[in-house]
Amino acid sequence: MKFRLITLALMLAVSIASVAQEKKSGKSKKHDSAVAEKGLIKISVMYPFSEGKTFNMEYYETKHMPMVAGFLGTNLVKYTIEKGVASGIPNQPLPYMAIGTFYVKNLEEYQKAITPNRDAIRADFANYTNVAPMILVSEVVR
Amino acid sequence: MKFRLITLALMLAVSIASVAQEKKSGKSKKHDSAVAEKGLIKISVMYPFSEGKTFNMEYYETKHMPMVAGFLGTNLVKYTIEKGVASGIPNQPLPYMAIGTFYVKNLEEYQKAITPNRDAIRADFANYTNVAPMILVSEVVR
Repeated sequence: MKFRLITLALMLAVSIASVAQEKKSGKSKKHDSAVAEKGLIKISVMYPFSEGKTFNMEYYETKHMPMVAGFLGTNLVKYTIEKGVASGIPNQPLPYMAIGTFYVKNLEEYQKAITPNRDAIRADFANYTNVAPMILVSEVVR
Repeated sequence: MKFRLITLALMLAVSIASVAQEKKSGKSKKHDSAVAEKGLIKISVMYPFSEGKTFNMEYYETKHMPMVAGFLGTNLVKYTIEKGVASGIPNQPLPYMAIGTFYVKNLEEYQKAITPNRDAIRADFANYTNVAPMILVSEVVR
């Protein structure tokens, strides 16, 4: 009986420790994939600022970007949104009102995923902006 | 004696579990700080592409960016470098050859750090490019 209870307590110890360990490596894996951006492809969708141009950040963040991200599947590593604040050069106008960026593993996969959905994506533009975006494809060097 | 041994085994269980837990939250904290970019200020230095313009990525990555990063101290959370590959819109020219981005906690601190070094930074441009960059200050929304 004594031996059984000790064994039980030890089994409990091992199982608690292994659950914690599992959680830990789950976190750790997520961490690694989140920061290892080198070599990824970025698709930056940039909305130029000029007089009379508008941009609804709330709609962009809660509707448009999640919709496009949903088309990209596991090729999408992460996406980011930034709000233009100012030009970094004094007395120059704000270059962009907003930039949305998709970090993907493979450019061809991205294009394959976007092509059949291009009309839906473009049709949604009018819901948050009156400017046509510029798009840069780049590679993360560092 | 039986009771003591069981207590000992249970204490062992708790201590193994708590060590594992500690390791886990350590990782977790690191993970959070690495990806918690929301609210940070980005200074994106963008080098426009046009006919006859050049950019030496090796010099930029190994000399220029580390020099500027060195001026920013603990205000700098991270910096990234990307190489322009193409326009994301068919039949449009490449918008930018390269973009270097500083993620900082505080814009005023950034400006205070850069101002006394502006001449050194600008003088270094000629070592890697013949184009004047455009600079966007933005805020990370997501």
